[in-house]
Amino acid sequence: MKVVIDAMGGDYGPEVTVKGAVDAVNSLGVEVVLTGVESTINEQLAKYGKVNGLTVVHCSEVIENHDKPSIALRRKKDSSMSVAFRMVKEGEADAVISAGNTGALLAGGLFILGRIKGISRPALAVPFPTPRGISLLIDAGANADCKPQHLLDFARMGKSFMQTMHNIEQPTIFLVNVGIEEEKGNELTKETYKLLKNADIGFSGNIEARDIPEGVADVVVCDGFTGNIILKLYEGVAQTFGSTLKKELMSTTIRKLGAILVKSGLKSFKKQFDYAEHGGVPFLGVNGLVIKAHGSSNALAITNAVKQAKRSHDNQLVSHIIKHLPATEEPQEEGSL
Amino acid sequence: MKVVIDAMGGDYGPEVTVKGAVDAVNSLGVEVVLTGVESTINEQLAKYGKVNGLTVVHCSEVIENHDKPSIALRRKKDSSMSVAFRMVKEGEADAVISAGNTGALLAGGLFILGRIKGISRPALAVPFPTPRGISLLIDAGANADCKPQHLLDFARMGKSFMQTMHNIEQPTIFLVNVGIEEEKGNELTKETYKLLKNADIGFSGNIEARDIPEGVADVVVCDGFTGNIILKLYEGVAQTFGSTLKKELMSTTIRKLGAILVKSGLKSFKKQFDYAEHGGVPFLGVNGLVIKAHGSSNALAITNAVKQAKRSHDNQLVSHIIKHLPATEEPQEEGSL
Repeated sequence: MKVVIDAMGGDYGPEVTVKGAVDAVNSLGVEVVLTGVESTINEQLAKYGKVNGLTVVHCSEVIENHDKPSIALRRKKDSSMSVAFRMVKEGEADAVISAGNTGALLAGGLFILGRIKGISRPALAVPFPTPRGISLLIDAGANADCKPQHLLDFARMGKSFMQTMHNIEQPTIFLVNVGIEEEKGNELTKETYKLLKNADIGFSGNIEARDIPEGVADVVVCDGFTGNIILKLYEGVAQTFGSTLKKELMSTTIRKLGAILVKSGLKSFKKQFDYAEHGGVPFLGVNGLVIKAHGSSNALAITNAVKQAKRSHDNQLVSHIIKHLPATEEPQEEGSL
Repeated sequence: MKVVIDAMGGDYGPEVTVKGAVDAVNSLGVEVVLTGVESTINEQLAKYGKVNGLTVVHCSEVIENHDKPSIALRRKKDSSMSVAFRMVKEGEADAVISAGNTGALLAGGLFILGRIKGISRPALAVPFPTPRGISLLIDAGANADCKPQHLLDFARMGKSFMQTMHNIEQPTIFLVNVGIEEEKGNELTKETYKLLKNADIGFSGNIEARDIPEGVADVVVCDGFTGNIILKLYEGVAQTFGSTLKKELMSTTIRKLGAILVKSGLKSFKKQFDYAEHGGVPFLGVNGLVIKAHGSSNALAITNAVKQAKRSHDNQLVSHIIKHLPATEEPQEEGSL
């Protein structure tokens, strides 16, 4: 399998992406192509000696985080991200990974790889750790305004993901809502509830946000605005709690002593909720494997994103999504919903 | 000042509401009226001996959590909640507090007390603790579907709350969104951004959910669906982190020893994020003081809700909201927006 990594993406750029790629090649038995400014990449590569299975494709441009996504993709045809997408499109690679501009990644998936026929809107699917295992949040931010049909497609793709990637034959699928009763919610969730209930996907009902972190649901379905709020608030609460706890435990000598004794426990606690341990965020519903790594990814997160790409490839995630679309449904055009 | 408490509301009912009321009367110098089934209330009151300033108004009915709010209010005219609202309406009490059915409380506020003229939609305003002090989340769940004008009104009421209750002359007001740039978001937030920017309320821009827990904003404005997700997810993350941390710290003998040494730190940490310490959730925009206590309120939470009602009354919160509405605006009818 061959993975193409946008080496210029992410807050830490090639220093991190190159290390992550080298580790992935060495540990996972995959080939990796790095797209980006060759001289910069080679500077990093020099640290690691010869690495078999790792190649560099030079690109003269970089899409920056402040670039407007669709314009950047159209104008910067020789950017590290555009070239990565074209390699997958043309069958030269099996998956694309980038920690760069999220909007550009979504646009690249949509406009270069294209939607799967029968999927109204591709979506970002975040596998997040809970005490009961992985829950999949979909959509985590690709579609700010949604219609019920979009959420049904998210549910279908989420189900495929949990079946192929986590071997859960009948994943529980919940709709994020303000109450568990069918009649609760806003217009979108009330309509979506009816659609999901009748869709033969194994819909489990509404879930309140309170029950998400505990891992009650295998698949957590919502519009991309709500999903983005959930994901970022989760991050924010973790950060605020972490720094406040640290401050408390460092505030007296006795507590400091205690903190030393519980240190391994705190570390294990932190690790259980660490995104980097779980790789990137797949963009589901496009013709190809696309994985968004967090902007602040470290090398481990990049390596884990490659691991995830490999597992998605081995488990034929994209084919599984296509195979499990309802046969009767007409292909739907973007914007017609 | 006289506060009327729906003694039958909440998961723990009169056992908790009566104790909270007794403590409030004894410590805050307010009068309290308890509405509910007299025999049940008196059974609890017997524990405390004579309490000056506390009276009971017998009601034959109770609105249950599973009751449909508007129907319950119309049919159960002699319920502890309906009677409480009528006492405020008729000037026999200055504020109503209930830990009961939220929907019924909102309906009671709207239909018995009525909206303030010029406020398109009343909203639940949750003061939540952050490392930098109190942030106010508005709307936390009263209005699942919102229009930009509603959010502008939420912003105005939130500003009044922070000015009167927390002495912040110029509170920072942020709109919850998926990015900080003006053009980010869903249709609602994009339109709302323009409205807030031009409204002369001191709008500070968008806030991502990640920055909410740290207390970056004094007033956090969003539609009630989003607010409800934020509030409940915050609760859920706290709960899951708490139980996982506890499990880790109890898993070995050394950690257990360490946990004893850091215990006061953990307690202080927990207290900083504890809702019960901060009273209830005011329902702003109606003609009167209405405070929703958490369904799982303990006696301390009830007492703190009374404390909050007293401070709201002393600081003339409702008058302040009315006084600071834009003079040019026409009163708006419910449903016409």
